[in-house]
Amino acid sequence: MNVTVHGRTQHHRTVAFDRTHNAILLIEQRLLPHEFKIVATGNFRATAAAIQEMIVRGAGAIGATAAYGLAQGALAFRGRRLPEFRRHIKTVYQTLKAARPTAVDPVNAMNDVRTAMRAGRTVEEQQSLALAAAEEFASNDVQHCEAIGRHGAKLIRNGMRILTHCNAGWLAFVDIGSATAPMYAAQKQGKKFHVFCDETRPRSQGATLTAWELAQQKISHQIIADNAAGHLMQRGEIDLVIVGSDRTLGRTGEVANKIGTYTKAVLAKRHGIPFYVAIPLSTIDWNLKRGFDIPIEERPESEVLGAWGVESSPKSKILSQKSAKAVYIRVANPTSGAHNPGFDVTPPDLITGIITPMGIVTPKELWTQRFRLGFVH
Amino acid sequence: MNVTVHGRTQHHRTVAFDRTHNAILLIEQRLLPHEFKIVATGNFRATAAAIQEMIVRGAGAIGATAAYGLAQGALAFRGRRLPEFRRHIKTVYQTLKAARPTAVDPVNAMNDVRTAMRAGRTVEEQQSLALAAAEEFASNDVQHCEAIGRHGAKLIRNGMRILTHCNAGWLAFVDIGSATAPMYAAQKQGKKFHVFCDETRPRSQGATLTAWELAQQKISHQIIADNAAGHLMQRGEIDLVIVGSDRTLGRTGEVANKIGTYTKAVLAKRHGIPFYVAIPLSTIDWNLKRGFDIPIEERPESEVLGAWGVESSPKSKILSQKSAKAVYIRVANPTSGAHNPGFDVTPPDLITGIITPMGIVTPKELWTQRFRLGFVH
Repeated sequence: MNVTVHGRTQHHRTVAFDRTHNAILLIEQRLLPHEFKIVATGNFRATAAAIQEMIVRGAGAIGATAAYGLAQGALAFRGRRLPEFRRHIKTVYQTLKAARPTAVDPVNAMNDVRTAMRAGRTVEEQQSLALAAAEEFASNDVQHCEAIGRHGAKLIRNGMRILTHCNAGWLAFVDIGSATAPMYAAQKQGKKFHVFCDETRPRSQGATLTAWELAQQKISHQIIADNAAGHLMQRGEIDLVIVGSDRTLGRTGEVANKIGTYTKAVLAKRHGIPFYVAIPLSTIDWNLKRGFDIPIEERPESEVLGAWGVESSPKSKILSQKSAKAVYIRVANPTSGAHNPGFDVTPPDLITGIITPMGIVTPKELWTQRFRLGFVH
Repeated sequence: MNVTVHGRTQHHRTVAFDRTHNAILLIEQRLLPHEFKIVATGNFRATAAAIQEMIVRGAGAIGATAAYGLAQGALAFRGRRLPEFRRHIKTVYQTLKAARPTAVDPVNAMNDVRTAMRAGRTVEEQQSLALAAAEEFASNDVQHCEAIGRHGAKLIRNGMRILTHCNAGWLAFVDIGSATAPMYAAQKQGKKFHVFCDETRPRSQGATLTAWELAQQKISHQIIADNAAGHLMQRGEIDLVIVGSDRTLGRTGEVANKIGTYTKAVLAKRHGIPFYVAIPLSTIDWNLKRGFDIPIEERPESEVLGAWGVESSPKSKILSQKSAKAVYIRVANPTSGAHNPGFDVTPPDLITGIITPMGIVTPKELWTQRFRLGFVH
């Protein structure tokens, strides 16, 4: 999407490949929203570190980064002997996989690249097939998000007030995003609407990333505390909810997503507000039989006990913080601990529809239409 | 309640009166949880400033502070002429009232003191009646909280996991608190239980004040993000919810409380978890006919856009921060705004019971038992 820095507007992708330098270009997401910066990882270990340290985050974005990382590792190989090359690829694969061991997207993306590579008879052929496969993975990601936008934009009518949770925006993908895709498409169609971004504690991805995205695209929006959505719904001030998903169960229609998603779904149900989940097909898990079995990551206590930001004054409206350094502050009582589950699971009875690149389906239709939706046994 | 500083445990009240110096002793709540400090206000203007600047906050606590403030102002009067004394009292009253113009408790508390004073025939008599009335107000506050604890403790069984929202603890009253009273009473009875404190964004009173209180009383507890309660309930990890209330409608049983309370009530209903509200009688509004008419304060954007705390490291477990200075950081995208409603209204169908000093009643019984519950027309 477009980013405006110092008055200059340029198109950027979250993840891109620089063939000349065999480098991966990433938006340094840990600096956002206070600073916009592109970083380059010059080898596959640096790429793995970028995934691990969350310079890049989000299902589609880390999938594409891993795909490019595998190609980058392949291209860096000097030699002609295939057995050695295969051993090297295995190391690259394991290194990138270990960067986010619970994430499924890097593994799926790298498997795509590995399958494509196998058609090559020489190291050189396999190297160029790897890069082509990674490029295709990234471009598919973009096309899928565009399709989500096309289908989802139909849900957005003029004057609507939309709630979203966390960041399922273009920063979480290669471009465009999932939950944000319908908004960006509706904006292109000239529709006017207002977005409430849940701040999304403890990591505040809504207040930082989604709000930054919407501000860059000049979409009317406000940040709200996670506590406020229920009150707004009760007062009739929210018309539609769109969220993303980290993993959606193809067999049950259950949706795992950032902690707090389930709460918003329960609230939407009580108030008869449509609740939609926007997903690329790659996040559908066709195997797992019960949402209860999705492992819920217990994240560090420090996330709940404090916050990250730049020193400021409550009264100042700071518009430029180019050189501001983000710090961590302890908010909570220093002798107390925290419980910090990272995700929750929303059951299908709370979900109005799932916006996929192939169209909008009900949670039940994921399974009945599985062959159209990329079912993999 | 007891507070341990540098290994020494002492009993403190949130608000106390020092007769020798005609001073009011207040816990400086803006420094908590990072520093425990008692401040003394030496005259009624300083007391009003302490209320205004939120050195002291919470319904019961500011009520008692205003009552003592009026007595303090009365005692400071030098002279014997009653008309002059009355004019002086009027100034004191207006000054203290203006400190928190929307709060009802300081006004009610000062009216009690004024009524009691009128029985005195001399300035001196009125002065000592004023102090006696203020002491009685404070001691009633404590007794009411104790009674809430006695009734509410019956709800707490061994091994229970209790959720609370915001701070309705002893720091919000003269001592003991409302929502915390059943916990402190159950602890005295030897019951073991665990408390989850909602962090309670945007001001984080759960993470700061409630967690500090529970840590001081050595009650097992953890802070959770406001987003996490739904997930915990879904997994069967919460057995009981107890919250406080800023205003409860005697006619309808609707409960106005810190933003996010309504959300927790909706979640508790879905999961069949008992949801209780603990209130002193003084917060019952017998006049208002619809919760929708309760004005919802729009608070500063800065609360949602940032956070207050002490600079720290996410990895350090700092146990003493005596000299640490709290700072404000901007978390959110600097070009985004926020919507910040401070309170919400929970309807009676979501409330299992209301714990009052006179016993536990259903929301409907507030009205049918109004004469027992201090109905004032």
